[in-house]
Amino acid sequence: MGGARLLIPKDGENVLYVHGVIYEAAKAMATDCEVELIKKSGDLDQKTIDDVKSHNPQYVGFDTFEVSTYLKLKKHLKGVRLKAQSKLVWDLRKVKDETEIQCMRKAAELADEGTKVAFETVVPGLREYELAAEMEHAMRRLGSEGVAFDTIVASGICSAFPHGGCTDRKIESGDLVVLDLGSTYKHYRTDLTRTIVMGKPSTKQIKIHQIVKKAQEKAFQGTYERAKASDVDLTARRIIEDEGHGEHFVHGLGHGIGLEVHEPPTLNPESKDILKTGNVVTIEPGIYMVGFGGVRIEDTVLVQKEKAERLTKTPYELTIK
Amino acid sequence: MGGARLLIPKDGENVLYVHGVIYEAAKAMATDCEVELIKKSGDLDQKTIDDVKSHNPQYVGFDTFEVSTYLKLKKHLKGVRLKAQSKLVWDLRKVKDETEIQCMRKAAELADEGTKVAFETVVPGLREYELAAEMEHAMRRLGSEGVAFDTIVASGICSAFPHGGCTDRKIESGDLVVLDLGSTYKHYRTDLTRTIVMGKPSTKQIKIHQIVKKAQEKAFQGTYERAKASDVDLTARRIIEDEGHGEHFVHGLGHGIGLEVHEPPTLNPESKDILKTGNVVTIEPGIYMVGFGGVRIEDTVLVQKEKAERLTKTPYELTIK
Repeated sequence: MGGARLLIPKDGENVLYVHGVIYEAAKAMATDCEVELIKKSGDLDQKTIDDVKSHNPQYVGFDTFEVSTYLKLKKHLKGVRLKAQSKLVWDLRKVKDETEIQCMRKAAELADEGTKVAFETVVPGLREYELAAEMEHAMRRLGSEGVAFDTIVASGICSAFPHGGCTDRKIESGDLVVLDLGSTYKHYRTDLTRTIVMGKPSTKQIKIHQIVKKAQEKAFQGTYERAKASDVDLTARRIIEDEGHGEHFVHGLGHGIGLEVHEPPTLNPESKDILKTGNVVTIEPGIYMVGFGGVRIEDTVLVQKEKAERLTKTPYELTIK
Repeated sequence: MGGARLLIPKDGENVLYVHGVIYEAAKAMATDCEVELIKKSGDLDQKTIDDVKSHNPQYVGFDTFEVSTYLKLKKHLKGVRLKAQSKLVWDLRKVKDETEIQCMRKAAELADEGTKVAFETVVPGLREYELAAEMEHAMRRLGSEGVAFDTIVASGICSAFPHGGCTDRKIESGDLVVLDLGSTYKHYRTDLTRTIVMGKPSTKQIKIHQIVKKAQEKAFQGTYERAKASDVDLTARRIIEDEGHGEHFVHGLGHGIGLEVHEPPTLNPESKDILKTGNVVTIEPGIYMVGFGGVRIEDTVLVQKEKAERLTKTPYELTIK
């Protein structure tokens, strides 16, 4: 209903096609483009075809299309080379400028605030979603436009599921509790995870937490312009492997973040990305042991020439006061 | 990172492919399928190709793919007809069964609760996002898994933008305030809009509200099994047109809702949908006048044989006490 499409011709004016429901808002807010009203949903593809034809191009790069739209354009734009070019868009998006970084700093502050409230609020007997409610409320009332992704409060054995969400499980004394939340400010997102123990931590919990913390710190130290993203992942992964937990680190080290929560560059063993100044990425090693629980520690960091800067600044205490 | 794909062969076991980050959770929760771990992101398409080949089919229907995945499958599955079949999935999804309806009833109750808190909390000087924070908190702490979509608190002239979101604008005496919110329960969503005036409404505000309310009521009365979705839209649209506001009703009357906030069937002038018992749709006429403000009234309703049932039940008062 609110879908939009932007046409950027080689010459001439850019055109943003929007439906009626966002037409007036788009006219009031959009810059560097004409805004054109699409009255019926079928008209969007037809209008695209007509306008592309009017420019008579040999080549059209696109970011993303439904398969049905792609096939329709292919059929009606004979002789035009049609090619997925999302990399072009991502190459622009993955290096943040100063205005974008300011938004992400603010988003990070809000996420820190949400986590602080979690530390102050958590008590045995509180349900996971009730704690999430307080964390989200803290961020929202201070200006977060909403969660950057579904908040995770994963306690006890649920903490062994990296993307565990929230359930109605009551947090118990002795539980590991993974708190993974993000806020959004002027459409820019942030991502922050801390893991705490409800009450007094066990020796094993302390040990796992120390390993993850060390992996996160060392990976952070290896994050700077020109570093290979796969090397940054490897730095954390080796530390976890050397402690015998390689099989328990079941995801990549991190991901780019900005307008979306998962963006390039990607920090994992297969990544071909080379980090650049202005990339904003998460560093989030974890150890997940089914039946025992999990620990993840994550910051959103800004890549710079010599080193990175943590945008999220919440302390790493396992034990909360 | 958390992406998944489900293969349903004509014969043999269904297979759900997932990445490491959700593998353990998927194994614990998924039913009627084998769960297979995809270790590297590139492996997902290759695995799909290999497994499809092993079944030697003439035809593969798919719900939705990235264009790049579609082209890869097309290239490597020579002789196999590959066809978008999202309609098949939507035909199943748009008729809700009793379990789904129970979830949507609960989601609707939570949205009613969020709106009630908005009525109790709104005061002149409160910022739009601050009011949203209270509405969302009310739903969340009672068990909503999160907002069904970005909450809209659109006040004053901003209320003329149907998808206006929330800004940091302070709500003022005399403002129209559009409150459009949704909650999610067990992954099922609901959608509810009320419009109030902060303080004493003007004659014009009362009049616009009455027209929208009448349009919503009449459309609701015309919502039942076998009704044409386009006719339901027309019922509301005629009332608004007859009052001289046709050009100010800038969107369709409503949309199906369920696991996603916008689903088939669609209630708009172009819709070919015929309503069925078990459809859950929104009915949300609106009048939006740039420079003056807007009014929208929306319920999530369950289509039944003789009539519909409103799942959202918040009163329609323009003036709040």
